[in-house]
Amino acid sequence: MSLLPKALENAIEALGQLPGVGPRSAERYAYYLLKNDSYKTNKLIDAFSTLHKGVKLCPVTFVLIDNNCEVSPLYTNPGRDKSVIAVVSDPFDVIAIEKTGLFKGTYHVLGGLISPIDGVTPDDLKISELVSRIKSDGVKELILAMNASVEGETTSLYLQQQLEDQKVIISRLARGLSVGVDLEYADHISLGRALTGRQKM
Amino acid sequence: MSLLPKALENAIEALGQLPGVGPRSAERYAYYLLKNDSYKTNKLIDAFSTLHKGVKLCPVTFVLIDNNCEVSPLYTNPGRDKSVIAVVSDPFDVIAIEKTGLFKGTYHVLGGLISPIDGVTPDDLKISELVSRIKSDGVKELILAMNASVEGETTSLYLQQQLEDQKVIISRLARGLSVGVDLEYADHISLGRALTGRQKM
Repeated sequence: MSLLPKALENAIEALGQLPGVGPRSAERYAYYLLKNDSYKTNKLIDAFSTLHKGVKLCPVTFVLIDNNCEVSPLYTNPGRDKSVIAVVSDPFDVIAIEKTGLFKGTYHVLGGLISPIDGVTPDDLKISELVSRIKSDGVKELILAMNASVEGETTSLYLQQQLEDQKVIISRLARGLSVGVDLEYADHISLGRALTGRQKM
Repeated sequence: MSLLPKALENAIEALGQLPGVGPRSAERYAYYLLKNDSYKTNKLIDAFSTLHKGVKLCPVTFVLIDNNCEVSPLYTNPGRDKSVIAVVSDPFDVIAIEKTGLFKGTYHVLGGLISPIDGVTPDDLKISELVSRIKSDGVKELILAMNASVEGETTSLYLQQQLEDQKVIISRLARGLSVGVDLEYADHISLGRALTGRQKM
């Protein structure tokens, strides 16, 4: 005999699908929804009902856009410099860069990073679309803005090799010390990169 | 201008209501649902749609039961000893005790713990219902199985005072060392209680 009502078990199981949510967290979330009036649960139902229908990928930059939008405003906005593209792996990386307020170019979301162990090959990423954009938009500089991880480095290297014969400057985000880090406690790889990439004052 | 599609923002906001889910986790969950096909999202919608309708409180023990159930099977089961009641704060505490396989009595869920700071007073808990059950079920022993927290201790003390004139044995869960704990690393309160509550071998 199951100790929990079927409806509660279903909710726990469905919540347990979310990334990083274990059985205990799922129980906590489901019980929280159950304890509160159904307003919160209905809000989730409404949001989930429109989630897939309301979002699509921009056909040029592959950032996430409203379904009633043609092309991302980050591309069509005349204030954005189409000759500079920041290449990122995921749509949320765009938000992170936009929040700096320092980038006025456009974006290209690859949709992942090369990772043989997860079965992600270059063919799964929007690389051919990037190559087309370099020609059609007269791109002068590509900024490879990938995670500082093995997959990020692999993807950066792969892109660099693929784009060798294109007349385009390829740069990547500076590696070094994060703001607020004590030299003493910095990891040695970051510190090494901060040293080799030292900047003239 | 918002950087995210409205539908995605709504999902992030709705997920952010869950306890302990911050904006970054909510983004992660919403993007995960969006990246996967709508099967996972629909599973959540279905589970949430039936959550409130499919669950109710047992009118005797206040554990969570299926909506088509009259009284909790943990009460109606003839194998359960109705003269012993384990008093717990939340429905999930019942599951924890059932998993030990060592308890054959019945349960009474208070629906919380006394906590003036959170505005929970004795009137918010199912205490009068507990008093009625003591009479109607001919209860011989109450096991106060509350959390080992300030609120748990407060509620235990309050119940003890309220039930003084009832002819019923009141016990509570033993405090002491958890299994696998090194004496050296045990907190001094637990160790102190293990000492005062030492058991004859």
